[in-house]
Amino acid sequence: MTMTQTTAESLVTRDDNQGVVTLTLNAPKSFNALSEAMLDALQGALDEIQADDSVRCVVLAAEGKAFCAGHDLKQMRANPDKAYYQTLFARCGAVMQSIVNLPVPVIAKVQGIATAAGCQLVASCDLAVAAKSARFAVSGINVGLFCSTPAVALSRNVPRKRAMEMLLTGEFISADTAAEWGLINRVAEDDNVDEALTALTDSIRAKSAVAVRTGKAMFARQLAMPLDEAYAYAGDTMACNMLADDVAEGIDAFIEKRPPEWKHR
Amino acid sequence: MTMTQTTAESLVTRDDNQGVVTLTLNAPKSFNALSEAMLDALQGALDEIQADDSVRCVVLAAEGKAFCAGHDLKQMRANPDKAYYQTLFARCGAVMQSIVNLPVPVIAKVQGIATAAGCQLVASCDLAVAAKSARFAVSGINVGLFCSTPAVALSRNVPRKRAMEMLLTGEFISADTAAEWGLINRVAEDDNVDEALTALTDSIRAKSAVAVRTGKAMFARQLAMPLDEAYAYAGDTMACNMLADDVAEGIDAFIEKRPPEWKHR
Amino acid sequence: MTMTQTTAESLVTRDDNQGVVTLTLNAPKSFNALSEAMLDALQGALDEIQADDSVRCVVLAAEGKAFCAGHDLKQMRANPDKAYYQTLFARCGAVMQSIVNLPVPVIAKVQGIATAAGCQLVASCDLAVAAKSARFAVSGINVGLFCSTPAVALSRNVPRKRAMEMLLTGEFISADTAAEWGLINRVAEDDNVDEALTALTDSIRAKSAVAVRTGKAMFARQLAMPLDEAYAYAGDTMACNMLADDVAEGIDAFIEKRPPEWKHR
Repeated sequence: MTMTQTTAESLVTRDDNQGVVTLTLNAPKSFNALSEAMLDALQGALDEIQADDSVRCVVLAAEGKAFCAGHDLKQMRANPDKAYYQTLFARCGAVMQSIVNLPVPVIAKVQGIATAAGCQLVASCDLAVAAKSARFAVSGINVGLFCSTPAVALSRNVPRKRAMEMLLTGEFISADTAAEWGLINRVAEDDNVDEALTALTDSIRAKSAVAVRTGKAMFARQLAMPLDEAYAYAGDTMACNMLADDVAEGIDAFIEKRPPEWKHR
Repeated sequence: MTMTQTTAESLVTRDDNQGVVTLTLNAPKSFNALSEAMLDALQGALDEIQADDSVRCVVLAAEGKAFCAGHDLKQMRANPDKAYYQTLFARCGAVMQSIVNLPVPVIAKVQGIATAAGCQLVASCDLAVAAKSARFAVSGINVGLFCSTPAVALSRNVPRKRAMEMLLTGEFISADTAAEWGLINRVAEDDNVDEALTALTDSIRAKSAVAVRTGKAMFARQLAMPLDEAYAYAGDTMACNMLADDVAEGIDAFIEKRPPEWKHR
Repeated sequence: MTMTQTTAESLVTRDDNQGVVTLTLNAPKSFNALSEAMLDALQGALDEIQADDSVRCVVLAAEGKAFCAGHDLKQMRANPDKAYYQTLFARCGAVMQSIVNLPVPVIAKVQGIATAAGCQLVASCDLAVAAKSARFAVSGINVGLFCSTPAVALSRNVPRKRAMEMLLTGEFISADTAAEWGLINRVAEDDNVDEALTALTDSIRAKSAVAVRTGKAMFARQLAMPLDEAYAYAGDTMACNMLADDVAEGIDAFIEKRPPEWKHR
């Protein structure tokens, strides 16, 4: 295991462990607020992973009591300018879409609170594990600012009336409720979040990298297509995937009832 | 509190209370059937709200034992004419889309049964609260008429196989099941529906009107867009929202740990 | 009840019973793998039903311990050729879309395992009933082959993070979990699956055939449209449905509180 701090002022730290990259938001005193600097650091870390074939999956974690409390409200108040806000939200939207478009799965690991754009980060990940005591809200409405960009991600995770209730009331939901509604995958006792996370990362690491990357790339794309186009695209994708060395090995291993030995891990 | 009966023959009554407008379907003997006259009355009441800046949110309620039993079957049978039906369903679809397009949130308050186009009304609202004993069905299939227009709203609220089961069997589901499937938000004991409703309307009334209206306008619109367009639109919307006086006050109040005093309530 | 074996080598048997057609995958030794021959047999059986006005609904069942284990991996390994795979997946996608486009509802009856394209079959049906002990997975990832085409159907049944978890981990979910997530409608004790299925088919058989076919044809189509188009289309569809003899009879029977006597059963 090596620790590399890749980004400006270490606002986001990167930890590599056998193909699993853990990016950790590292501004615990501000509840890991998505300041301009934090967004830059996160974008930079994601851009590095984009081009790194050795990465198998990414964990998005956070230092301290809170996962992420959303935008930096003080910084926003200090810049009362429409062009500033447009740029800020565009930058934030770019980070979220980088997660969606990354070639490998991204798993959120959530403790404490995930609010506003912090909840959006969770919704933007492919998978999410949370501590039992974690809580989720899109709470901008409480300061007069409807969580419009978080709504984009949230409404693509949970049923419409659930999303609208969270957005209009700004109220917290528990980790159990978040799991029930589809915002996260798994809830673990507060002491066992790492185990629950490792179960997922181990499962993904045990798979062929070709298959995992194929899936990440095709999933969101096909979901936006009409059914016939989605099938045409998925069929071609799967035919390409079949030609990978790993599939021959995988099927042979399956038929011979032995574990596969992947070329692309 | 003032009571204004705005519509023809008082088929829909309007009650205004501190920005919360309660529209009450008032044909209890016909289980509040959506007759031509009822659709006209409801459309008229919604049109008035469309242009009324003082409204904070709308409650859609119903007089009597049933919320709404759908179209008026006797009236439909008395007009066996395709052009009549096309006009009728277009008018009904216009009412439903007026709810979706209203600039403020609409909350259904449901007791008794909500069937066919009555269930569609619930599905078309942004939020819904129901009595524990309330029941929901899209039961047109029982009279040979598949609930095609209710299917439009229902299938945008609940998972596809749930919607198809309700539509093909015509069977009732309980309020608890409706909440579990995402058709409604909250279930209250029959004696406590008003309290559950007031909790929601109080929560919305405590917010900035600018923020609430921003949210209502952007939510459905972004959901119909591809992800990148949705983010571009939501980012611009949020930048505009940031320029409202209320946000400055909201963030200052948050930082100073005091309740905000909204200009736009 | 008559038994007709319509397809090549009886890989799919057809049983007609009062308008309910049961198609049974009949290769239990290979866990009903979707070999080329099986896909052809299933396509042929579906094509026959497409043009058969006497059919009220279809049950998709399977012989033996497993519902369906997906593609025939040995056959796929024996044909290491991209064009072969493209043709194979296109053929499989055509079968799945035939189920979606069939003019009558299709109900999956699931026991044992439904994996990969077998799980896709379940997801492609309008309704599904499963034995309590049945299990579901999209397990291609375990052999290095991401279940891209199954993802198309699965992701249109269950929330996005659920689908992604199943696709990336390849892990089984229970019948109860499948019901909770929306992949199937009903779970029955292993000894009572036929009763649970018959409850659904009896319910559909008791309806007007015009109404059932109207619903099957319009449901998926409207779901792919923007809201205003969906309402215009659904309104026209419902106006046509209103002109059927059965609706007059259905409404009259409802008003007279007697059972309807359908012309189109």
